[in-house]
Amino acid sequence: MSRLNLDERPVSFGVLVFPGFQALDVFGPLDAFNTLFFAFGAPLKLSIIAESLDPVSTRPRTAPPGASDFDESIVPTHTYDTAPPLDVLIVPGGRGTRDAVTVQRAIEFVGEIYPKLRYLITVCTGAGIAARAGVLDGRRATTNKKSWAGTIALRTQVHWVAHARWVVDGNIWSSSGVSAGLDVTFAFIAEVWGNQTAVDLANVLEYERHTNSSWDPFAELYGLVDPVPVTL
Amino acid sequence: MSRLNLDERPVSFGVLVFPGFQALDVFGPLDAFNTLFFAFGAPLKLSIIAESLDPVSTRPRTAPPGASDFDESIVPTHTYDTAPPLDVLIVPGGRGTRDAVTVQRAIEFVGEIYPKLRYLITVCTGAGIAARAGVLDGRRATTNKKSWAGTIALRTQVHWVAHARWVVDGNIWSSSGVSAGLDVTFAFIAEVWGNQTAVDLANVLEYERHTNSSWDPFAELYGLVDPVPVTL
Repeated sequence: MSRLNLDERPVSFGVLVFPGFQALDVFGPLDAFNTLFFAFGAPLKLSIIAESLDPVSTRPRTAPPGASDFDESIVPTHTYDTAPPLDVLIVPGGRGTRDAVTVQRAIEFVGEIYPKLRYLITVCTGAGIAARAGVLDGRRATTNKKSWAGTIALRTQVHWVAHARWVVDGNIWSSSGVSAGLDVTFAFIAEVWGNQTAVDLANVLEYERHTNSSWDPFAELYGLVDPVPVTL
Repeated sequence: MSRLNLDERPVSFGVLVFPGFQALDVFGPLDAFNTLFFAFGAPLKLSIIAESLDPVSTRPRTAPPGASDFDESIVPTHTYDTAPPLDVLIVPGGRGTRDAVTVQRAIEFVGEIYPKLRYLITVCTGAGIAARAGVLDGRRATTNKKSWAGTIALRTQVHWVAHARWVVDGNIWSSSGVSAGLDVTFAFIAEVWGNQTAVDLANVLEYERHTNSSWDPFAELYGLVDPVPVTL
């Protein structure tokens, strides 16, 4: 594991949100970075990016009226048009990713900003957003195992890896479904801030990390195998 | 494990939030209940309760200005004065609990509503809020292990249990720090909706549950032992 020098570490973080985002996809990683900031003193900044500055709900845009009384809303700090330069972008998944209209601007935004990022982290079906932006083409990546078939069909040029808690290819860190966002985040923190910081942080959050990126009982549960990627 | 009949299951959930709440304390449990609602069709309602309807940040009220650029805000649906009747109240912890002014109304609210609840779930230092409300007096409960000494000192009439991922005493389910909120939630879901629902839900969230309530390497890490409770 490398450990970056102080002046090489990323500072400016962004997360994008859309109606029907999965709460834990967002707040697993952010809770770790919140604590890295508040309890460990890392000089981090967060932008929460959406289509407008209106609160964004975990309720999918397409959910039938009245069917949804169990949801939470988060307040964006920036729109896709006003987002500041970012070192790291976190892309969550969730039921909203199944609706092309909901995530159209998110997909465009990832395509536009990716060349200027230092790291891209996807959680769950957030990989489907990055895939549709084309930034995973020719790369190894993983995604949610329950929604595997539908997500990998979105972009056959990706080297989808079925059996993985998370995958690192270049500067793209993709993780499996929902709670896997915690493990990829701790692995990323170990890479950038050093393993001892990741260990100490997990002890504060009382989280038992999966530190083996190929640990994946859910790929086995769902009987998944790697598809053959389409050569570009 | 019992499994309640359909018409006996809790429907109306509430979570209280205050400046400096720990994001994962809230969104670990809520993500599980969100998914139980959206993907499993459980007829649940959520109220997010705070002092006012203004967005509530993970940033502590007492954080020095300019020191906090990494935080998220959630939108309340009710105030402490307008909260509807609840079956279940979730009380999170976080740095905000260390400031008596921040959590004064939360403590009062828990004391007022507890006699009308069917279940109280505390996560992390949220147990310190319930303890100060007096509702844990003479009960067994656990809390965050890193903040153990400061939290148990808030109320010596509680039978604090050091070595526990979570503790159930009567209708009060208290969990250890931060990520333990996920495990107490799955245990609660197993109790109310049946173990198979909890297993299926964990598979959707790709979460490896701790199903042993006395699993607690963090109590060992910090060398904690049960204090002798003050007899009432």
